[in-house]
Amino acid sequence: MSSRDTIWGTHKEAIEERLKAFHPDLEKYIASFAYETVYDRPGLDLKTKELLAIVMLVSLGNPQELKTHFRGVVAAGGTLQDIEEALLFAIPYLGFPRVIGAFEVLRSMKGFASSEP
Amino acid sequence: MSSRDTIWGTHKEAIEERLKAFHPDLEKYIASFAYETVYDRPGLDLKTKELLAIVMLVSLGNPQELKTHFRGVVAAGGTLQDIEEALLFAIPYLGFPRVIGAFEVLRSMKGFASSEP
Amino acid sequence: MSSRDTIWGTHKEAIEERLKAFHPDLEKYIASFAYETVYDRPGLDLKTKELLAIVMLVSLGNPQELKTHFRGVVAAGGTLQDIEEALLFAIPYLGFPRVIGAFEVLRSMKGFASSEP
Amino acid sequence: MSSRDTIWGTHKEAIEERLKAFHPDLEKYIASFAYETVYDRPGLDLKTKELLAIVMLVSLGNPQELKTHFRGVVAAGGTLQDIEEALLFAIPYLGFPRVIGAFEVLRSMKGFASSEP
Amino acid sequence: MSSRDTIWGTHKEAIEERLKAFHPDLEKYIASFAYETVYDRPGLDLKTKELLAIVMLVSLGNPQELKTHFRGVVAAGGTLQDIEEALLFAIPYLGFPRVIGAFEVLRSMKGFASSEP
Amino acid sequence: MSSRDTIWGTHKEAIEERLKAFHPDLEKYIASFAYETVYDRPGLDLKTKELLAIVMLVSLGNPQELKTHFRGVVAAGGTLQDIEEALLFAIPYLGFPRVIGAFEVLRSMKGFASSEP
Repeated sequence: MSSRDTIWGTHKEAIEERLKAFHPDLEKYIASFAYETVYDRPGLDLKTKELLAIVMLVSLGNPQELKTHFRGVVAAGGTLQDIEEALLFAIPYLGFPRVIGAFEVLRSMKGFASSEP
Repeated sequence: MSSRDTIWGTHKEAIEERLKAFHPDLEKYIASFAYETVYDRPGLDLKTKELLAIVMLVSLGNPQELKTHFRGVVAAGGTLQDIEEALLFAIPYLGFPRVIGAFEVLRSMKGFASSEP
Repeated sequence: MSSRDTIWGTHKEAIEERLKAFHPDLEKYIASFAYETVYDRPGLDLKTKELLAIVMLVSLGNPQELKTHFRGVVAAGGTLQDIEEALLFAIPYLGFPRVIGAFEVLRSMKGFASSEP
Repeated sequence: MSSRDTIWGTHKEAIEERLKAFHPDLEKYIASFAYETVYDRPGLDLKTKELLAIVMLVSLGNPQELKTHFRGVVAAGGTLQDIEEALLFAIPYLGFPRVIGAFEVLRSMKGFASSEP
Repeated sequence: MSSRDTIWGTHKEAIEERLKAFHPDLEKYIASFAYETVYDRPGLDLKTKELLAIVMLVSLGNPQELKTHFRGVVAAGGTLQDIEEALLFAIPYLGFPRVIGAFEVLRSMKGFASSEP
Repeated sequence: MSSRDTIWGTHKEAIEERLKAFHPDLEKYIASFAYETVYDRPGLDLKTKELLAIVMLVSLGNPQELKTHFRGVVAAGGTLQDIEEALLFAIPYLGFPRVIGAFEVLRSMKGFASSEP
């Protein structure tokens, strides 16, 4: 399965429609360059790639795409705890405010349970 | 072995001296908070943490610390190819200029061979 | 006509009121420095200036002002397609997430038709 | 009184609950490192620290924490005018869009009067 | 002539060698995606694209690529004055320090005369 | 004495020449807008303003101007320790790498003694 099919999962059609409505070529570039060219490179496993994606999105101020890639970690075989650990690990590099914002997005998502028992 | 001892390796004394000369408490906070508190958390393996560190440093404009964590990937059991893959993976998220700058730092380091055969 | 009158257009009074309510001197500095001093420089045509404004706002994470300057491109004689091209052009420099966010703002604006026929 | 008690004031319990729900260790690190280690250093007075916090949050794109530290300036003996002056001072360094966004947050807060008589 | 041939001009071979030494796929992606896919889109003229490139590079902290695109403006039919105007126009959006840094790069380049008579 | 005369001090002529060589209008805007309009506002004392300037420059990646404003803190009646405290205070907001870079600039400046006895 392509990395895009794995990450987008059951949201695939919705994400494609959203991006095409933004601009057909934007969707095309994301599919052909971001996913089929860069993401599909062998070398790093998909879970690692998704954790890298997450901390880069945190560095960019936690845009909407963060939700897609929180789901992507799990779709790639990772856990909620992996996500939490990546976010906490970002503190020394990016400071607290960016990381607090990322946890706010994470906890707003249905289907992702809290880390507390 | 602590994550700090692994990552800093044979450069440990030099890095400590540099940070202490900057400010004794800066060195202390990096040791006790960044490394002993955050880095030493279980959950993610050290190689993954170092790849996360690298893409965050790329997002920050490739400061000096990048060299320490290029070495850190290898010290944690990763390879030059892992570093290269993490940098190429950053392109769709951070754009080309940041990634070009990171490769410039990587290729300037002695002891890291080129990726070409 | 001053660049400010052209860009703010029929929204002029609303924008002025908003900025004055934020701080009277903020409105004054924007009028006298940003517009009358910098924007009104001869050299580049206003459409080009507005396209420059747009990609810089994208680099800053797509703040509210983006809407004003999407309208400004059109007020300066540009088209929706000019805006779309500037946003797509930003991908290699700033990465996909920033550009996706900008298209989201663009498509949320009434009076700006979709690029699709 | 600790700097954290002063800044969080009557919001203390709410902020602690929010951070703990994000991640218990996030709350712990903010309390023990950000506040008890860094904030509680002697040297700069708390009002100055809070003004520094504000312009750094503006540079990060005005995240939620900005509200806490607007209140923090006042809790530390500063005034609404001090906040406004710090925001206006940020213009030459960070540009207008970031500062406009910060005033938008400030004016949205109940209990902070407008600067106009 | 392709936009890449125009912009890279007589530096083409040197730039290609540098990028290939960084990573062969980095060079390939820049050629095929950044230039042949994005840059070669019709819609905006090349001079406008290069001015957009410049202000985005200023927003990223003036990396090395800035020099290539200063030359690119001229190669695309623009003038030194166009570059200077784009940089001055960036002040209200990005603040003075970024713009000062860009002028420093510009004035360090041989073959670009000062703006003063 | 104007804030500009105080901050630039004995470096005034050199800074003016440098900025004028970059672009005469850049120097003019910095003098008339940044200093005479924004800096010279009453409200905050000059030492506080310079500490604010420093942490914003740290957030921008420590450009050259940082040196001018390290000197500015002292010219405004502050001490080396004030500078060090402002830099350490930035850690929780901006992360370690930015702050390490700022200390590197500080320690490279002649005439600023180390913080160690």
